[in-house]
Amino acid sequence: MSKPSDQPSLRWDDHAIVTLDQRALPHERRLLRLSTVDDVITAITTLAVRGAPSIGLAGALGVALSAYAHCSQGSTQDGRTAVEGDAQRLAAARPTAVNLAWAVDRALAKLGDGPDAVLAEATAMIDEDLAVNRRMVAHAVQAVRDRCPQRSLRLLTHCNTGRLATAAVGTALGTILALADSGRVTEVLVNETRPLLQGARLTAWELAEAGVPHRVCVDSAAAASMRQGLVDCVIVGADRITARGDVANKIGTYALAIAAAHHGIPFIVVAPESSWDRSLADGRDIVIEERADDEVTSCGGIRTTPLGTRAYNPAFDVTPASLITAIVSEHGVHHTSEVSA
Amino acid sequence: MSKPSDQPSLRWDDHAIVTLDQRALPHERRLLRLSTVDDVITAITTLAVRGAPSIGLAGALGVALSAYAHCSQGSTQDGRTAVEGDAQRLAAARPTAVNLAWAVDRALAKLGDGPDAVLAEATAMIDEDLAVNRRMVAHAVQAVRDRCPQRSLRLLTHCNTGRLATAAVGTALGTILALADSGRVTEVLVNETRPLLQGARLTAWELAEAGVPHRVCVDSAAAASMRQGLVDCVIVGADRITARGDVANKIGTYALAIAAAHHGIPFIVVAPESSWDRSLADGRDIVIEERADDEVTSCGGIRTTPLGTRAYNPAFDVTPASLITAIVSEHGVHHTSEVSA
Repeated sequence: MSKPSDQPSLRWDDHAIVTLDQRALPHERRLLRLSTVDDVITAITTLAVRGAPSIGLAGALGVALSAYAHCSQGSTQDGRTAVEGDAQRLAAARPTAVNLAWAVDRALAKLGDGPDAVLAEATAMIDEDLAVNRRMVAHAVQAVRDRCPQRSLRLLTHCNTGRLATAAVGTALGTILALADSGRVTEVLVNETRPLLQGARLTAWELAEAGVPHRVCVDSAAAASMRQGLVDCVIVGADRITARGDVANKIGTYALAIAAAHHGIPFIVVAPESSWDRSLADGRDIVIEERADDEVTSCGGIRTTPLGTRAYNPAFDVTPASLITAIVSEHGVHHTSEVSA
Repeated sequence: MSKPSDQPSLRWDDHAIVTLDQRALPHERRLLRLSTVDDVITAITTLAVRGAPSIGLAGALGVALSAYAHCSQGSTQDGRTAVEGDAQRLAAARPTAVNLAWAVDRALAKLGDGPDAVLAEATAMIDEDLAVNRRMVAHAVQAVRDRCPQRSLRLLTHCNTGRLATAAVGTALGTILALADSGRVTEVLVNETRPLLQGARLTAWELAEAGVPHRVCVDSAAAASMRQGLVDCVIVGADRITARGDVANKIGTYALAIAAAHHGIPFIVVAPESSWDRSLADGRDIVIEERADDEVTSCGGIRTTPLGTRAYNPAFDVTPASLITAIVSEHGVHHTSEVSA
């Protein structure tokens, strides 16, 4: 547990969830203590806790909070109904990432065995996520090496997919950190990821913590950086993946995939099995969360537009499988649509 | 002179240039009074005055300021040398837009006839820019209509190319306003245009002033909006155009052009003749201004990254002619590379 990326992003502590408040980063390392289901829902909707795997784990621990609140004196029908209601509210806190509903359901399934069993399931999921991420990162490192024979790589990533977005280790950013660990990374270009700047705030913070060379750029500069030869490979995460490999991820991912394909640059998605939603084939059927206008019409709390300006603010977009070079999970490479490099 | 877009963006007033301080918009309508060459250079480098045609006109008026300062008692060799030095500094204030050096040279060429002649040339250029923009907009409206037979259009634009960026009327945004005037615009999507948010701050302000329906989006959402069918045509300006039609424009334009081509959406550039630099063939030979890291590592004056984070911050990118549907100037449509719609 010596590397920064191995540090757990959330844990159970005496009937509460303790986690870093990601809204306060990179300027302040503020711990949040969530002791009610409403606390958890607020933390998820305001993105204090974010990243598809992390919100899943927070949701599962939220079911444990509810179970202790309503069923600690033994399970009654009223208690079970209350927990089921809480679970439903937790699962609906954000609509796009499929991990959230999946993780909440898994924890809820243990309710019949009492609150301790729910908590044991949720904490087991934290350990599992860590193990899953280690296996996934090993596969993804190999997938990148197979496609990028250069000794030292220039990588580009979007949003945050590091330990903050997972139990620990990370997915796409975990892969980048592992490549850097083996001395194979010249530079990481980090898209700042407007509107909420997860790249500028969180990914830059994790890369600095790990001592990996990086520069932040505005999202719209990514295509120009590819044309300038600054990018050998794009590596991103996913919030939901359909049966045919269409990927919902942070807004801007689709633009990045189009630009990578245009330049013949490998575009690799790294996400756990739990991100797959095989009930959907076509990415156009994924529900895309539209968030409040003021995320776009302000920046860092400062209004950027005239008063009354409306915004178009989808939190995610969908990249069709045809634009994705490879999708990697803990099981290996799932899908490939190799571009001509 | 009744429409807002007809209002002049800068004027000469008793040995000074008076212009809106574009850094203060949209929150404050602050007038700047520039009475020395250094004032003009600072206004241009800090983007108080911006937009390729506007900085050209400010540069030409700056030569008049210098001529009055150094040659008002009659032209001496020392005086002429001083003005030539000022002209060189003015022309070098920003490197990418070709209009600046072109306009400064034109004003300087009148120096032999005295300061009044220099000023007369510079103010004639303001009138010319207005006339040029009216002709250009008429051609561009036709170019859009030819390619988009829909009765009512959904348009997308980047950065600011309205009256603020020109003497008046505007280029790309002037075209959008003219289309809206004739009732042909359903909605304009405005890229916020990080890092300096000219779209969110200035274009939204001009569209609100003119009463045209619009929404602001983060730059990386443009591709997703195209996939959702929200864009019939992309219209942007230019800072420099090479002989073969490669276009340098605000960072993010290239990403937008790739996405438009991917979706078969017309991508139209509207810029005056003075933006053409026929001494260059290949856009890769255009000097791209790299600006300070803190434009990217902060937003609205608030730091967004960890301390010490470096940035990749080219102010412009180059879109090759092959991705551009049409380039329109006051002379008509110059270049076409029609995409299959």
